[in-house]
Order: sequence, then C-alpha cells, then structure tokens
Amino acid sequence: MIFGALEAGGTKMVCALGKEDGTILEQISIPTKTPEETIPFIIDYFKDKEIVSLGVGSFGPVDVNKDSDMYGHILDTPKTAWKYYDLLGNLEKELNVPIGLDTDVNGSCLGEITFGSSKGLDNVVYITIGTGVGVGAAVNGQLLHGMLHPEAGHILLRQHPQDSFAGNCPYHGTCLEGLAAGPAIEKRWGKKAVELKDVDKVWEIEAYYIAQALVNYILTLAPRRIILGGGVMHQKQLFPLIRKEVKELMNGYINTKEIKDLDQYIVPASLNDDQGIMGCIQLAKLALQG
Amino acid sequence: MIFGALEAGGTKMVCALGKEDGTILEQISIPTKTPEETIPFIIDYFKDKEIVSLGVGSFGPVDVNKDSDMYGHILDTPKTAWKYYDLLGNLEKELNVPIGLDTDVNGSCLGEITFGSSKGLDNVVYITIGTGVGVGAAVNGQLLHGMLHPEAGHILLRQHPQDSFAGNCPYHGTCLEGLAAGPAIEKRWGKKAVELKDVDKVWEIEAYYIAQALVNYILTLAPRRIILGGGVMHQKQLFPLIRKEVKELMNGYINTKEIKDLDQYIVPASLNDDQGIMGCIQLAKLALQG
Repeated sequence: MIFGALEAGGTKMVCALGKEDGTILEQISIPTKTPEETIPFIIDYFKDKEIVSLGVGSFGPVDVNKDSDMYGHILDTPKTAWKYYDLLGNLEKELNVPIGLDTDVNGSCLGEITFGSSKGLDNVVYITIGTGVGVGAAVNGQLLHGMLHPEAGHILLRQHPQDSFAGNCPYHGTCLEGLAAGPAIEKRWGKKAVELKDVDKVWEIEAYYIAQALVNYILTLAPRRIILGGGVMHQKQLFPLIRKEVKELMNGYINTKEIKDLDQYIVPASLNDDQGIMGCIQLAKLALQG
Repeated sequence: MIFGALEAGGTKMVCALGKEDGTILEQISIPTKTPEETIPFIIDYFKDKEIVSLGVGSFGPVDVNKDSDMYGHILDTPKTAWKYYDLLGNLEKELNVPIGLDTDVNGSCLGEITFGSSKGLDNVVYITIGTGVGVGAAVNGQLLHGMLHPEAGHILLRQHPQDSFAGNCPYHGTCLEGLAAGPAIEKRWGKKAVELKDVDKVWEIEAYYIAQALVNYILTLAPRRIILGGGVMHQKQLFPLIRKEVKELMNGYINTKEIKDLDQYIVPASLNDDQGIMGCIQLAKLALQG
C-alpha cells in the first residue's frame, strides 16, 4: 500500500509517498503561493499515484476538530490568501481517498513517537524553532486538540535581565516566538543565527527563553520527553545550555527519573528533518483505519 | 450501590459516601496529621460502610502512573511524615475494594466535567487557588498524566510592573503559586485576602498573575473551558478582572467561539466546593468498571 503525505507549511509544501513503516519512496517540494496556484499542483501530484489515503500536516491555525463546521479549514491567518480556505474539502473533492489532518507540529510529534527515538512514548512535547515557534503534543497517546490545537509557541515569558529587545510578535511582543524564533534573533543581533554561532551571549539568552518555555510545558503537560527541532535547533550548542537552564529554573522541584536524566529528556529530533512528512504518513495510515 | 470517596488534602481529609449520580450521602472531615494517626481513622470510617469501590483524590506530588513501581505512593513532599508513603497500598490492604486514584485537582476537574456545569466537555482545565495553586486537566476526555501529573501551579510568570514582592515559593520564587496563592497575598499586603476585599490594587495585581497563567494554559492545552475554584476565588470580583486581563494579553490572537465569549469560558467552580469529593465518587465508579 502506498500512502500520500502532505506537509503543508507556510513557506513550502512537501508532497511525498510513503510505506507503512514510514519509508519515504519519493518526495517533492513546492513553494506555498495562493491556494489557486498551489492546490492544483498538489492534486496533480497525488492523482495518479494510487495512494490509499492521505495524511496532511498543515500550518496553523487550522480547524482540526472533526465535529466543527469549519473542520479542515485554515483559520484566521496573516497569510490572507489562505484565510478560511477549505484545505481538507478541496483535497477530498479531487482525491477521493480518506484524509487525516492535523497541524504540522502535531504531525512531527506523531512522526517521532511512531518512527523516531521516542517510539511508543504516550506523552511527548515536540517543539520546532525556526521562522516561528510551533508546538505539538501527545497526551495519553493521542495528539492534543481541544478548543483548537496547541499554540504554545506564543506563551508569555520573562525577559532575560540582559536583553532589552522589545520582542517580535505582532500580538504578544515578548512571547516565546517573539523572543526566540529565527527572526527575533536576527532582529536583536543584526545578523542571522547561523552567522552568530560563536557569540556565546546569543545562545545563553536563547537558551534562557527556550528553557523557560520548557519548564512551563513540563509543569503543565508532564511529558515523558521533549523533542526540539527546526532551523534554530540545528545550533547543537543550544542543547547543553537549555538543559542547564531547565535544571536551574526547576530548582529540584520535580524528581522523576526523567528529570534526573535531562540528556535523555530534552533531545533533538531524531528523523533527519523528515519527522514532519513521516508523521503525515502515519496520519494517512490512521485515516485509513477510520 | 454506595461508593466511597476520599479527598486527601494537605490540611484535611474528607471521607464521604456517594451515589452513582454524584449525590453525597454523608461526609466527614478530619485534620491531616501523620499517616499513622490519620489512615486508621479513614479505614475505620469506610470499613463497615459496604462501599463497592473507593475513589481517592490526593494531594501531590503523588505517583498516578499505574505502570510505575511507586504507583499510589506520595512522592517527594515537604510534609515529611507522608514522604514516599504508600497511600494506595495501605488503603487497599484493609478495604479490599477497587480503588481509583488521582490528584485532588484532577479529581475536582473530573467532578466538574461529570456532574458540574462543564458536564461532557472533553478538554477542561481546573485551577484551585488557595493556600497553594493546583491545576488539573482533562484532555480528549481523559485526566492528564504523563511523567507525573500537572504541576502547573508552579509555572513561571512575569512580575507585575507595580509589584516588588519577591515571591513566596521556596523553589521558584515568583511562580504562579509564589505570587498569587493566599499566603503570597498575605505576605505582600500584610493582611489576609478576605480583609483586603475593598483594596482594588490587590485584585488588579492578583488578576494579572492569574490571567497570565490562564493565557499560557490556553495556548498549551487548548481547553474548551477554564474553571477556577479554591478559597482565593471566593473573591468573585476577580472574575471580570481576570477575563479583561486575558483578553488584553491574548490581544486577538485566537478567535474561537470560546475565546469570543470569556464570560462562559472562564468560570467559577459550579458544585459548591463539592467538586473534589464528587470527583472522587466518579473515580470510585471508574475503578469499579476497571
């Protein structure tokens, strides 16, 4: 059986074909333009591939509640061409296969707990830090939804005492995304993150913000592991800094075996940046099961 | 059928008998002393009552993971007499009925979604603000556990610009509990919360902290409703202040129908301070079902 996988991101769309074990048979990537330009291309790609089902991991906000009138629609997004676009409906109309839908970050979380180093863990938080900050989560083995899906890239943080940057989020100023996403780093320091690799202060401040967010996720969601992916997290020097800062901020409050072993608790994504598209393969498998 | 319910709090233990529909037939309350003094009394109470099962909502931290070696034990608590006490094991040994166990705040959350005004909602956050701050949550209809249970009373907050109080939490200083629990109010203002009812500044600052925490829970857990209980929340003037502050902090970021109607979204506990013990009745029912 061949499964279709679509990672519908804000800047690019990845279309892939995969097998039950997560193997990616082929994948292509196109830039995200308007729905009128982009969706026909996607439909063309999948139409003659004989996929049994499709899994879609979409940028948000997107309505992922099956019992909602707006299920499958993109919601109130700054990408105006996509605002209230019926992503699921338009794909279903043309492809005639079951389609599973979730957010891109929940998809990545699913990829990691299905095929990655967190295989089998029931409670996991997945965070991507790149042009924005996205958070996905599994709770009791299921991806987390409710009123909406997690939007925890926007949680409110304390400012680092040596950081006077006003924050970059148009809604919240100094939320996690406003302080720690790639564009925030670039705006604060006047250079891209990759060019700042050797400036210790950059990563000390970055780790402070990420650690603060992690502490709040730990205390709220009680995950068994936290996975960090995305472009900014390619700066591997961040991991020991984040772990050190988490330890200081927790200050001995929780003493589970997981917290005592932060090297195994706060980890990089394990699937070579394929966690998102592999998660979409799993979404397709689940959609076929109904 | 008669169900037993035990709300095992840090200051008092409530023992009750209840019916399937949540009706409380009788209840007694005793102060929480050492396990050696308190547990025999509880066992005596339930022993001749012909209960079919028992539900226990315990103060935390408590191990609520059924697959853990320490399942049912109190964990690392400042109440030294209870540290690592096998609460579940000692009750099971004497009572010979199925016992369901969760945290006291998860119990209150369960009470509200089973018998209260949030009946049937699958994703709910319950917060109690009193001598401490406790948080329970249901996700996809199940109480939230993972590595541990929520400890979200300790999430880290920004200080209010007009508040110089250093915070009251021995672990985190200015976490939610350190800034907004009853003892923090008393220490900051030199008077108990009930005596400060008419001092607007007290409640403006209090609402700022609670709202900040709520925003982070909303963004992380996407609840369909947030319920606030506990002694401090008997100050009903807090509710409109909290809603106003949540609206300002969210700043239009999420536009679900729930967020557009904060009067119905952020609500007081609905069961007359019986939500905890009624939740324990439901825990007993679930334990009987296995």
